[in-house]
Amino acid sequence: MVPFTERTPRVVAARRLTRRAERDKTGRFLAEGANAVGAALARDPGGVHELFVTERAAQAHPDLVAGAREAGVRVSPITHRAAAGLSETVTPQGIVAVCSLLDRPLDGLLDHTARLVAVLAGVADPGNAGTVIRVADAAGADAVILAGDSVDPHNGKCVRASAGSVFHLPLVRERDTLATLAACRAAGLRLLAADGYAETELGAVDAAVPTAWVFGNEAHGLPPGALAEVDLPVRIPLYGAAESLNLATAAAVCLYTSAMAARRPAG
Amino acid sequence: MVPFTERTPRVVAARRLTRRAERDKTGRFLAEGANAVGAALARDPGGVHELFVTERAAQAHPDLVAGAREAGVRVSPITHRAAAGLSETVTPQGIVAVCSLLDRPLDGLLDHTARLVAVLAGVADPGNAGTVIRVADAAGADAVILAGDSVDPHNGKCVRASAGSVFHLPLVRERDTLATLAACRAAGLRLLAADGYAETELGAVDAAVPTAWVFGNEAHGLPPGALAEVDLPVRIPLYGAAESLNLATAAAVCLYTSAMAARRPAG
Repeated sequence: MVPFTERTPRVVAARRLTRRAERDKTGRFLAEGANAVGAALARDPGGVHELFVTERAAQAHPDLVAGAREAGVRVSPITHRAAAGLSETVTPQGIVAVCSLLDRPLDGLLDHTARLVAVLAGVADPGNAGTVIRVADAAGADAVILAGDSVDPHNGKCVRASAGSVFHLPLVRERDTLATLAACRAAGLRLLAADGYAETELGAVDAAVPTAWVFGNEAHGLPPGALAEVDLPVRIPLYGAAESLNLATAAAVCLYTSAMAARRPAG
Repeated sequence: MVPFTERTPRVVAARRLTRRAERDKTGRFLAEGANAVGAALARDPGGVHELFVTERAAQAHPDLVAGAREAGVRVSPITHRAAAGLSETVTPQGIVAVCSLLDRPLDGLLDHTARLVAVLAGVADPGNAGTVIRVADAAGADAVILAGDSVDPHNGKCVRASAGSVFHLPLVRERDTLATLAACRAAGLRLLAADGYAETELGAVDAAVPTAWVFGNEAHGLPPGALAEVDLPVRIPLYGAAESLNLATAAAVCLYTSAMAARRPAG
């Protein structure tokens, strides 16, 4: 079969999915790389509409391609240049799946079994969002909610940074940050905001309590309205001369402090 | 004063410092951005040989420029294009200092007052190295040692990712990883290696003990010879479906677990 080029209509249509408006219109996005494609197929092959692979990627990942075919996914060979056009990263992986959007509504997401939720309120950088989704997944979070004008988690750089984790746990996009916080509170979660100016230090918090951690924009932090709605702003202690942590490492410290405390034997 | 262009000999010489060999030959490196320049001046103005600034950056950071002049640092105006040539990042900051290399020898670095050290053994990505240096600084580490064939911490992307932290705590470059581990042990530090395949989980470790945390290459982990030399390989628990954490978030979890445990009241 002759590989599709960057001018083949199905490749042209897929390339449009690098734009958020087109993703929202079609309900589809691109998952690039063997990690992401494997996670997409493992989650739900019915959510994978087509798999584009270069000859080289097909040789590198024969199990993935065979698994996709067995699951009834259309597998289409593409040229290297076509693959580059579908890539939002510097080094195209040569394997890209067209998938159904992953996010679900906030309504009905959380109940009283929830123990750990990450809320990103206005996070702008897709790489940061993806890394936090990966950390939240690793920490066993019940969901990640991208609130306010946070970046779309279906952005290619976010999918890549998440290393498959966008497929592992429930994701929500919710414009209304206060509604997000209210839903977390209604599910019985304590609301903690990571805030470099907070009085309370992380070590002073009972981290074993079921918690929604709220993280703000990389440059501007949390919107004041949201900060007023949380139960407690919490500061990660800075023992050296650094003025702050970056978003992903701060989220790692907060989410793991909660996850490990919840599993520590009482006493 | 007419701004220097990318052809002005001093700018040409500075541009060569984007190469490691030239940095090692001259003993100098480039610190780009207001954060880094501010930290360089705060640490030791004598280690800052020249400050290049565009007109726009000079207007944005008048205190920095004035502070440099007062400290006797030569301040040289440059064009935007010259600034771009000195930048190793996508968005040139327009303010770049030529500084003395920061690393010091391993010999004599550590004594029995050391409580927390981060060892990067073969870490390849400068952004990762810089982020770990920032986290180690925030966690109050006594030093960061870049061992084996780790990236040069004076690399522009590393300096940028460290957000000034390369100037805040002692840095060592040491080719001999085993000598590095021996020096940590001689200083009374327990050696823990972050290792996804370890039996022992992080939560099972007494984190309050003075510790050198050893982190390996992003793709290949620790060299086997180094893994055999540590006291204990330790695994960060993965509670969800993620297969791993990335280096920077893993380091954040390990270093902060130690830093916070060491400061927790006994009981």
